[in-house]
Amino acid sequence: MILLRNIGLLVTCRPDSGQNNLHAIPHASLVWSAGRIVWAGPDDQVPATLGTLVMEDAGGRMVVPGLVDCHTHLAFGGWRADEFARRVRGESYAEIARSGGGILSTVRATRAAGEAVLAARADEMLTRMMALGVTTVEAKSGYGLTVADELMLLRVYQQLAARGPVRVVPTVLGAHTVPPEFASDRAGYLRLLTEELLPRVAAMELARYCDAFVEQGAFTVEEARQVFRAASSLGMRAKLHADQLTSSGGAELAADVGAVSADHLEHVSDAGIAAMAAAGVVAVSLPIASLYLRQPPLPARKLLDAGVPVAVATDFNPGSAPSYHLPLAMTLACTTQGMTPAEALKGATIVAARAIGEEANIGSLEEGKAADFAVIDAPDVDHWLYHFRPNACVRTVIGGRTVWRGSE
Amino acid sequence: MILLRNIGLLVTCRPDSGQNNLHAIPHASLVWSAGRIVWAGPDDQVPATLGTLVMEDAGGRMVVPGLVDCHTHLAFGGWRADEFARRVRGESYAEIARSGGGILSTVRATRAAGEAVLAARADEMLTRMMALGVTTVEAKSGYGLTVADELMLLRVYQQLAARGPVRVVPTVLGAHTVPPEFASDRAGYLRLLTEELLPRVAAMELARYCDAFVEQGAFTVEEARQVFRAASSLGMRAKLHADQLTSSGGAELAADVGAVSADHLEHVSDAGIAAMAAAGVVAVSLPIASLYLRQPPLPARKLLDAGVPVAVATDFNPGSAPSYHLPLAMTLACTTQGMTPAEALKGATIVAARAIGEEANIGSLEEGKAADFAVIDAPDVDHWLYHFRPNACVRTVIGGRTVWRGSE
Repeated sequence: MILLRNIGLLVTCRPDSGQNNLHAIPHASLVWSAGRIVWAGPDDQVPATLGTLVMEDAGGRMVVPGLVDCHTHLAFGGWRADEFARRVRGESYAEIARSGGGILSTVRATRAAGEAVLAARADEMLTRMMALGVTTVEAKSGYGLTVADELMLLRVYQQLAARGPVRVVPTVLGAHTVPPEFASDRAGYLRLLTEELLPRVAAMELARYCDAFVEQGAFTVEEARQVFRAASSLGMRAKLHADQLTSSGGAELAADVGAVSADHLEHVSDAGIAAMAAAGVVAVSLPIASLYLRQPPLPARKLLDAGVPVAVATDFNPGSAPSYHLPLAMTLACTTQGMTPAEALKGATIVAARAIGEEANIGSLEEGKAADFAVIDAPDVDHWLYHFRPNACVRTVIGGRTVWRGSE
Repeated sequence: MILLRNIGLLVTCRPDSGQNNLHAIPHASLVWSAGRIVWAGPDDQVPATLGTLVMEDAGGRMVVPGLVDCHTHLAFGGWRADEFARRVRGESYAEIARSGGGILSTVRATRAAGEAVLAARADEMLTRMMALGVTTVEAKSGYGLTVADELMLLRVYQQLAARGPVRVVPTVLGAHTVPPEFASDRAGYLRLLTEELLPRVAAMELARYCDAFVEQGAFTVEEARQVFRAASSLGMRAKLHADQLTSSGGAELAADVGAVSADHLEHVSDAGIAAMAAAGVVAVSLPIASLYLRQPPLPARKLLDAGVPVAVATDFNPGSAPSYHLPLAMTLACTTQGMTPAEALKGATIVAARAIGEEANIGSLEEGKAADFAVIDAPDVDHWLYHFRPNACVRTVIGGRTVWRGSE
């Protein structure tokens, strides 16, 4: 049993309260055993009944729950820096996609890379994310777009999840875009997804969630509905890329199919917000993508005021969000969307955990949950997210094991 | 004499070309001696006449000129994280200033901190900036606002400049805001600045430039003109905080007084742009401040198209820009202002050097200039500024001496 004492501020992020209440405990201790939290509370109230403890010292620093990046496209081949220069000169994402760039460019590079290269690259990214305090990562396929290549991406995630230490939650995103082979046979691609890919993914238990990109140029609401129907019958809940570039009914569909989350939402309608609130769908804000694509910010205040929980994630991918820096996304959620630092931290911990159905296991520092946490060099959450630094995380712990330590 | 060979891409940023031409040399070498560059060119063309060389290897990485942060408020007491949470909820900078927050809050904390604490804090910031590839930092006073306290801040910069290794260029910003002691005697404060502070700063050679915050709630164009007239007679050129929150004639004034730079410019008028172009004033873009204050982006394309060189800097300060991350400012200059990665890099090197009158000495990698450079883990500039990471700099060299090395 290990006791971490002298925590300047233990930010538990317990969910049993308002969005702005972090349940933070000053001068605190955290006790864990066999990877699980046994006790969390003030330094001077550690129960004697806990028995013999190995003592560690947090040096007065802040401890927060391990960050949960609940929306990434972790494994991909190549990069798309060339498109970045085109976009900053004013070309739209849709224009670049039509000229053979965009998602399909990464699909070509991903198919060419092969499983070993994809696994090595994704593993390196996980290591870098871990240094920022990230302990759980949702990871989507969607750059394969054949049965074999989608399964390859999901096997990469399976392998990374098994190896650890970062927890990986896989999502199948065969409905990312229609691949060139099916350009003139959309119905055929949908049959491939619903009759071949999804059943095989389910049989091999390669994904927990099924995602679809509902957007002009990607999939219609009705096409996505077919995909989610098949996924649901196979035991996979829906997640959606919704209302990112246009208001296209994605939020409404998410509510309708009981999705665990609807992500992006830069152009969500009021009706979509109301439907999400009624259905209990989590909104996932992806402010790095909004920044890189010059989209309006997600209307976080409207969503929160309507009772929709708002998670914050990176959307890490080689096109629209080429950064895995989750604390940057959290600071941007404050500066561009009007989320408070407390809301942004909850959004990247307990609410993000809910967006991947893991809220019983991770996302807050409470008895019985996994001992996943980050030690942050800041006196409080406001200061951390306000004073943006390359990396304020000085130690990352997953399942009670220290997996990263900074130089200070 | 030292030879750094196997540079994947040597980005010289030579100024004798268009804003988008970086004069980058693939497979290059860089040779320096006694802190100065002796030769830069392709690996296979190193002149035999250079004699005996100590060989180092860049591992195929990119080398860029040391970054120049040409607008910071480096030394200050306290922080203002509390105001960040207020601002994200919608309070304006002006409202916070009126309620006793803003600059005056930092003035109180700075006066209370004392010279030793201010120097230690600023020194730590310089060390962290250096790790990002920053080799020169412009540093403003402006949080003292008494003769004694402004001189104290400038002595801190003098001490840091003397100690090195980061080059520090000091600017006196007594005209930052009217201090509470002179709230009902603006003319008295202007006399203090022009008749006491500036002459003493000049006599002790404590500042190269004189800055003023031209804005509603700070100083009028006519008041700033008085300050610049006094500074000019003492040999100090003008720099301006211009048109940040409102269009207030700052750019026109900068042109009129022959300022070396006009900074912020989120609300610059077309007439102001034309005047700056005609007078050769450098525009300094501060996209981190625009982000944190939710200001519109500086119209970089308009300025560049009008022939105004645009530098990029952090504006590092505890209120409106609490981050010293210059590569973040460069990425934001691309994503929010439509600058190309090449323009952003020139903006943070050779154009930034011009904004502090140092373009003959630093800002590009050319024979005779200081051997100040950063080794970047990226194949090219597009990739570096597109794939935002905590820190892509793996080695920083100032005056030929390696002052920082990353873990990889």
